Amino acid sequence: MTAQGKVSLRALEGIPDIHPGDDLAGILIENLKRQNRPLKDGDILVIAHKVVSKAEGQIVELANITPEAEALELAEKIHKDPRKVEVILRESTRVVRAMKRPDQQEGTLIAEHRLGFICANAAVDESNVGREDTVILLPKDPDASAHRLCARLQDAFGVRVGVVITDTFGRPWRLGLVNVAIGLAQVPARIDMVGERDAFGRELSVTMPALADELAAASGLVMGKSDKTPAVLFSGVEWQTCDSSAGQLIRPQQEDMFR
Amino acid sequence: MTAQGKVSLRALEGIPDIHPGDDLAGILIENLKRQNRPLKDGDILVIAHKVVSKAEGQIVELANITPEAEALELAEKIHKDPRKVEVILRESTRVVRAMKRPDQQEGTLIAEHRLGFICANAAVDESNVGREDTVILLPKDPDASAHRLCARLQDAFGVRVGVVITDTFGRPWRLGLVNVAIGLAQVPARIDMVGERDAFGRELSVTMPALADELAAASGLVMGKSDKTPAVLFSGVEWQTCDSSAGQLIRPQQEDMFR
Repeated sequence: MTAQGKVSLRALEGIPDIHPGDDLAGILIENLKRQNRPLKDGDILVIAHKVVSKAEGQIVELANITPEAEALELAEKIHKDPRKVEVILRESTRVVRAMKRPDQQEGTLIAEHRLGFICANAAVDESNVGREDTVILLPKDPDASAHRLCARLQDAFGVRVGVVITDTFGRPWRLGLVNVAIGLAQVPARIDMVGERDAFGRELSVTMPALADELAAASGLVMGKSDKTPAVLFSGVEWQTCDSSAGQLIRPQQEDMFR
Repeated sequence: MTAQGKVSLRALEGIPDIHPGDDLAGILIENLKRQNRPLKDGDILVIAHKVVSKAEGQIVELANITPEAEALELAEKIHKDPRKVEVILRESTRVVRAMKRPDQQEGTLIAEHRLGFICANAAVDESNVGREDTVILLPKDPDASAHRLCARLQDAFGVRVGVVITDTFGRPWRLGLVNVAIGLAQVPARIDMVGERDAFGRELSVTMPALADELAAASGLVMGKSDKTPAVLFSGVEWQTCDSSAGQLIRPQQEDMFR
């Protein structure tokens, strides 16, 4: 929408702790209005999934979980609470790898989440829950969550905006964590540059910047994991609204050259 | 250095095409001065490796390359210029996978670069060279390149700054390309949060945001692949100078749970 070559990102300060049933969209709108920062056309709000999951009640009390045989076996192998393993398996379509490094107190399951994302522990998270013995799942349908938030934000401010919901993933081959997009509204997952030409006229046959993941990773620059800053406002990004899904960032298994 | 929760990034406009022997640091300094934008304490300059590689003469004329037997065999298998394959093999310590998808005109070698990065074609690049039958390699020692640039920038403006040199990588499991850090000066590769606590006091045992990769990915928001904007200036990032290396972003093979 803009093409100024300048982007700014700012964490929304003062978002309260979110609880099941909270009106997250209303809280974000109120925060933006209170800070006298109405959304402008083309702004993008990047939101950590945890507050979305909490508002939607995607919290599991481990006391209510009875692990089945597969969970008990894996838990034994990687020294992990079998109830957590059970929750991870329920969120997964397959376990890619189960392992425990010597320096880990408890091991990790690399799993394919039912939504297709491959990540540690099927994105089941036990930090920032606020209670012991509870874990947080991804939203049931993160794209739908993003669309609901986006619609409310657009209604409140009367402009076109985008929403990216993120989680923090580890990566094959590279150390350190980055945020990635797991839910999208209006923001393109990737910019398809197939057929465009580079600065010297050579056809760029395979260049597809992952715009949504660039936004997600950038949000980590101001979204402190230990801070209560789960929402980051981007201005100045060059993008066009489209009918997107975070699923468009998942590489089909048959074309994954990196396996 | 700052902690305002607000970051801005801006592409440096008007960087000319770079040729072997060009004084890239001088060109960047002149550009910043001409735009009346002196570097401030804590600024970070993120630079696409291609201009660094070109200035350093890391360009190979394929006409001068005689492929050996291994290159000829792989080239046949994946339908790729055997001279390119030879250059890729010379840059690599091992080939992770050689393949050609039905939709590809020529195939791809996923290879471990001699610097440890695992990426397509050992980062040997044939776009944006400006001449047919030439390819660009990574800088010989990207950390050293970053340090030289950083020292010149600091001298010119009398402030502490950081430099990140990037390349554009594909990713296992996720579609679309993102920029990653392949050379660092002063900017931490990762922020080690081991032992810190999340907002609810739970110890964050494994949270290590990959700051340098967050910066690299964010730079893609304004660093158009087909534009001549190879340098992006970040202001407002919270960071401390340290003795870093992009090698700190490479996951040791024995602890890579994702393989």
